Amino acid sequence: MQDDKTTTPVESLEVRVGNRLKALRRTVGTAESCTGGLIAHLLTEVPGSSAYVMGGIVAYANSVKEQVLGVPSALLIQHGAVSEPVAIAMAEGARRALRVDYAISVTGVAGPGGGTPDKPVGLVYIAVATPSGTFSGMYNWHSTDRSANKLKSAEAALMLLLGRLG
Amino acid sequence: MQDDKTTTPVESLEVRVGNRLKALRRTVGTAESCTGGLIAHLLTEVPGSSAYVMGGIVAYANSVKEQVLGVPSALLIQHGAVSEPVAIAMAEGARRALRVDYAISVTGVAGPGGGTPDKPVGLVYIAVATPSGTFSGMYNWHSTDRSANKLKSAEAALMLLLGRLG
Repeated sequence: MQDDKTTTPVESLEVRVGNRLKALRRTVGTAESCTGGLIAHLLTEVPGSSAYVMGGIVAYANSVKEQVLGVPSALLIQHGAVSEPVAIAMAEGARRALRVDYAISVTGVAGPGGGTPDKPVGLVYIAVATPSGTFSGMYNWHSTDRSANKLKSAEAALMLLLGRLG
Repeated sequence: MQDDKTTTPVESLEVRVGNRLKALRRTVGTAESCTGGLIAHLLTEVPGSSAYVMGGIVAYANSVKEQVLGVPSALLIQHGAVSEPVAIAMAEGARRALRVDYAISVTGVAGPGGGTPDKPVGLVYIAVATPSGTFSGMYNWHSTDRSANKLKSAEAALMLLLGRLG
């Protein structure tokens, strides 16, 4: 518990990410499947974010993953759109297409429908492509709430990016 | 005032757009500058929207407008990024790049900074590229509230699309 009136208010993840990017003079972009643009929306809620947000690609259909992000169709066939290799290829493709220093990607099953035993609703893969390599993770929100799954995934992606910004 | 318990609840714009697109078996995509992904986020809040949302491009930087959406650099230089010709080129570029039937674009000054006498904060151009031509409009929200300007612009874009879906 904290009663100190001088305590700094907790800043939102998108503000913290923005402050780090500004301090580092680095740029960011997004490649979103199941979050559907929410990460870009959150990043651009911050005044002045045009200094470091170059843009994003919402790749809902596999055709957009292939044609705009350059995800190899063989990867989509072999692993499926909701997989770690595809998350990695999306982030790296966005980093190239948007010419940014850091790119965040998310691919998953937002629900409420579309789940399978192997890939249940709430399963999400996230990747961050950086100048020093690409980092990824798997998450399972164990929920069929579409909006909540989108928001949790967006926040997890921003956290993964923040961790790489030092 | 309406007391009738059988009254249908008012559906959100994104649900109404989705229902029309499903009925017409048509697809949609977005090209967003100042709304920063919010339109794609709203469209993909609707369960089952992957049937008609192919994707979107958040083109915050001019380089992304040029390289991903194919907006001619001469148009950006002559009219500026916040202009009707650029809104039209963004929508038509997204229709091509995402291979969709309908593409919505927004370019404007979300604020709170970045306004000029000619292009004040709250000024927005919106376009919808369709199979039968491209339609556009200018809006001025007369507000420096960034979040509100984004939301009003997103709703106006969805309204403009809905009007073209018959």
